[in-house]
Amino acid sequence: MAQPEVSTAAEGDAVTRRKATPQALGSVLDSLRQHLPGRVETGEAVRRQHGHTLTWVPNIPPDAVVFAESTEEVAEIVRLCARHGVPLIPYGAGTSLEGHLNAPLGGISLDLSRMTRILEVNDRDLDVTVEAGVTREALESHLRDTGLFFPVDPGAREATLGGMAATRASGTTTVKYGSMRENVLSLRAVMADGRIIRTARRARKSAAGYDLTRLLVGSEGTLGIITELTLRLYGRPDAILAAVCPFAALDGACNAVIQAIQLGLGVARIELLDPLSIRAVNAYSKLALEEAPTLFLEFHGTKAALDEQITVFREIAEAEGALRFDWAAKPEERSRLWRARHDAFWALGHLRPGAEAVVTDVCVPISRLADCVAETEADIASEGFIAPLVGHVGDGNFHLVLLVDRKDSAERARAAAFLDRLVGRALAMGGTATGEHGIGMGKIAHMAAEHGPALAVMRAIKQALDPAGILNPGKILPPEDAGTG
Amino acid sequence: MAQPEVSTAAEGDAVTRRKATPQALGSVLDSLRQHLPGRVETGEAVRRQHGHTLTWVPNIPPDAVVFAESTEEVAEIVRLCARHGVPLIPYGAGTSLEGHLNAPLGGISLDLSRMTRILEVNDRDLDVTVEAGVTREALESHLRDTGLFFPVDPGAREATLGGMAATRASGTTTVKYGSMRENVLSLRAVMADGRIIRTARRARKSAAGYDLTRLLVGSEGTLGIITELTLRLYGRPDAILAAVCPFAALDGACNAVIQAIQLGLGVARIELLDPLSIRAVNAYSKLALEEAPTLFLEFHGTKAALDEQITVFREIAEAEGALRFDWAAKPEERSRLWRARHDAFWALGHLRPGAEAVVTDVCVPISRLADCVAETEADIASEGFIAPLVGHVGDGNFHLVLLVDRKDSAERARAAAFLDRLVGRALAMGGTATGEHGIGMGKIAHMAAEHGPALAVMRAIKQALDPAGILNPGKILPPEDAGTG
Repeated sequence: MAQPEVSTAAEGDAVTRRKATPQALGSVLDSLRQHLPGRVETGEAVRRQHGHTLTWVPNIPPDAVVFAESTEEVAEIVRLCARHGVPLIPYGAGTSLEGHLNAPLGGISLDLSRMTRILEVNDRDLDVTVEAGVTREALESHLRDTGLFFPVDPGAREATLGGMAATRASGTTTVKYGSMRENVLSLRAVMADGRIIRTARRARKSAAGYDLTRLLVGSEGTLGIITELTLRLYGRPDAILAAVCPFAALDGACNAVIQAIQLGLGVARIELLDPLSIRAVNAYSKLALEEAPTLFLEFHGTKAALDEQITVFREIAEAEGALRFDWAAKPEERSRLWRARHDAFWALGHLRPGAEAVVTDVCVPISRLADCVAETEADIASEGFIAPLVGHVGDGNFHLVLLVDRKDSAERARAAAFLDRLVGRALAMGGTATGEHGIGMGKIAHMAAEHGPALAVMRAIKQALDPAGILNPGKILPPEDAGTG
Repeated sequence: MAQPEVSTAAEGDAVTRRKATPQALGSVLDSLRQHLPGRVETGEAVRRQHGHTLTWVPNIPPDAVVFAESTEEVAEIVRLCARHGVPLIPYGAGTSLEGHLNAPLGGISLDLSRMTRILEVNDRDLDVTVEAGVTREALESHLRDTGLFFPVDPGAREATLGGMAATRASGTTTVKYGSMRENVLSLRAVMADGRIIRTARRARKSAAGYDLTRLLVGSEGTLGIITELTLRLYGRPDAILAAVCPFAALDGACNAVIQAIQLGLGVARIELLDPLSIRAVNAYSKLALEEAPTLFLEFHGTKAALDEQITVFREIAEAEGALRFDWAAKPEERSRLWRARHDAFWALGHLRPGAEAVVTDVCVPISRLADCVAETEADIASEGFIAPLVGHVGDGNFHLVLLVDRKDSAERARAAAFLDRLVGRALAMGGTATGEHGIGMGKIAHMAAEHGPALAVMRAIKQALDPAGILNPGKILPPEDAGTG
C-alpha cells in the first residue's frame, strides 16, 4: 500500500531536509501579510480543511493558507516562495481523493477558489476561457441559456475547473466526450520561477512545438500552477435519452458495452453498478431498481438518430442477457437517475455505517474489464469485504468503494494488501493504477511498477521545471530510493 | 522568414561547435558497420534523399544513413551516438514539409522504414500496436476486412505512423476524429541516453503521472525516437456520404461550417477549396466543378442519421448562399472526389509550371477563418501572387500553395515577407503558425512570437531530456540568441 510508505518517507531524512525552515516560512508570511492584507490564514481549522482528503491518506495540513485573486498575484507568491524555498500547494475545492492537497513538507496552500471569473465565451468557436477557481456548477449555470455545455463530469459539482485539469479528471461522459486531456485547449500557468506562460493558442489544433497543455494537465500542481483555462464546449444535443438496463450477469453487461462502442453508437454515458451498489442506491435515493448488474445509459443525438441507436442497443443487450429496459425520456426522470448515480459514493458508505470508504479507480482495456471485475469480486468474497462497484464501463474504468474499519489495524492491513493486488491485477492486464483520481500521495508507491524506466523521464522533467522542488512536493513522484526508475 | 535565418545560424559559431568531429563520426560509422553489416549507407543519392524536404528549406543531407530493424537496435545506435556526440535524425518516409529531416549539424539519419510489423490488433478494445515504420496505407490494407479503420489522414498515403506521431499530423478527418494528439494511446520510444520507455498503458485513459505520450507526439524526434505506437481504431461507419457544395461567397461557406459544427452534425471531412484550386483540380483530375468557393464534405454515420444530417446541412447551406449540392453516395464516386482533393497539392503546382510550391498551414479559431482568408486573399491580390487555397475549414486550418519562382530573388523576398505577414495575421487572431506540418527548420523563426515565455519551458525540457543535443538538433527550438524566451 502506498500510504504508510509515503508517510514514513515524509518523516524521513531525505525529505525532511527539504522542508522550509521556520525562518523562511516566517519571512514569506510576513511579506504576504504586507502585500496581501487579510488574505493569509494560519488557523488550525482552515489549515486542516486545506489538507482535506477523502481517502485514508492522513491529513497533513499546510502551515498557512493564502488566497490569490489573480494570475499576477499567484506569480508574486510563487516568486516569494521560490526565493525562500517554501513549498506551495495549489488548492481549488478540496474534492481530490488521493491526498493531493497535503503538505508533507509543510508550506503554504495557495487557494485559488476566489479566481471565479468567466472571461470569455466564444459560441462560434465552441470555447470558453475561465479562471482556475470557476466550478463545474458555476460554468454550467453560466452556459444554461447559450445552447452550449461543458461535458467533463467527475461527479463533484463543486470541483473547480483548475483542479479538474490538474488531476486530469474524467467521469461519466468521458466515453463520448473525452476527459480533461481532450477538452483543455490552452492553459495560463505560473511556473516555479514565477514566469507566467500560456501553453497554446485558441486554435483547435497546432503542430508548433511541445504540448505543454497536456504536460500540465494531470501534473497535479507539481510542474506549474494553472490559473486560467480555455476549454472546449459542445452544442447541446437535440435529444437526450436515459435508460436503466439490468443484466442476468456481469459478462453480458460488459459485452453489450463493447459492441455498442464498436458500432460507434452515440452513447454519452454508460455506467455499470453491481447488485450491492444498486441496493445502496435504492435505499439512499428512494429507487426500486432490481438488484442485478445494471447499466445506466445516456444517449445524445438527434431524435431520429437516437431512435435508431436505441433499437440497435436493445438488440445487442437482449442478446447479452438484458433483463429489461426502463427509458427515462423526461428531464426530471433523467436527472433523478443520474443524481442517484452521482450520489452513489455517499449511498455506498451507508452499507457499513462508521466505516471509512476507500475509493479505487483502476482502468483496464475494456476487453479485460469483465475478467478484472470477476477476479476482484472473487478476491472481495474471499476476504469478506464490503466493496460495492460502480464503473465508467465504456472506458474500462471502475470504482470499488471499499468500506474499512480504520480502527481495526488487521483489517486495514488486509485492505492495503487487497488494494495492492487490485492494482497489480490491472497493471498485468495492460491497465493503470488510476483512471481518473490521480496519484497524489495515495498511489505514489505504484508509480515505479506502472511506468518502469519512464519514471526517470518524469523525474527529469520535474527537476528541469522545478529544480528547488517547491511545487506540491511529495506528490506523483516517489522518493528516489523508493524503487526503480 | 524562417529559412534564411536558420541556415545562417547553422553555419554560425554557437551551432557549429556542437557538430560532431569527423573522428567521432568515423568511430560511430565503424561500429555501426561492424554491428549492423550492410545497413549503413553513405552514398550521395541516399543521403540527399534522406534530407528530403518538400518546401524551400534547402536540403542539408546527413553524413550517413543507418537502417534500424528493432527498438533494441535503435537503442544501441542511440547509445553509440550519445557516447560520441553524433546527431541522430529519425526518418520515416520523407514526407514532412518543413525540413524536419535535414542535418544542419551533420550526423546520421536513422531510417525506421524497415520497422513495418503490425504487432497486435485488438478489435474489442479498438486499438492496434504497430512499429514506427508502418505506413498509413499498410495499416489501411491490414484492417480492410476487420470492420475497423484508423482515421488520421494527412493526405500522403506513404507517410509512416511514427512520422505522423512525431509531427502531430492531422488532416481531412480531424474535425470528427481528432489528430495524432487524440489518437495515439501509447508510445514505445528510445530516449537520448538509450533508455527504452513505454509512455502509457493500453487503457483508454489514465491519471497516473505526466503525459509523456503527448509530450513525444509533436516533438519531431527532438526528445526521443518513437519506435512503436498503440493507436485508437474506430468501427467503420454504416454509411458514408460525400458531397460537393459550391457557394456564392467564401463567408457563406465558413458560416455554414460553423453552424454544422455547433449543431454537432457528424461531419467527418469538411474541406474548402477556393475558385483557383477548383480550376486546378478540374484540369488535373478531369472534373467539371464550378469555379466557386466550394466545400467538399463527407458524413459518417448510420443511414437514418445521415439522411437527417444532410437535410439539416442542406438547409443551413442554402441559407448561406450554397449554389448546389452534388452527392456522391457510391464508393467509386466518393473515392474519385477525395482523390482529387488529396491530389490538390500536385494539381495546384500545374497552375505555374516551373515554379516552386511553398505550402503554408496556419490555423485560427474558426470564427476568424473568413477574416483571415479574406485579408490573405487581398494580400495575395496586391502582391500579384498565384496562391490557391485549400483548407481543413472545420478546424480553422488552411493551406495556401504559394507558387514562387525561386530563381527570382526579388520575388523570393516578397514571398518571404508575405509568409511572415500571414503567420503574424494568424497569431493576432489567436491562431498558430502551423496547424499540422510542424516547425522543423521552416517555421523555427516564429516560435518566439507564438509562444513567448513558454518557449523557455520547452527549452528546459529539451535540455533535461537531451542534454547533449544529439536528437534532431536545429529543429523546433530556435538558437537561444535568436529571440525572446
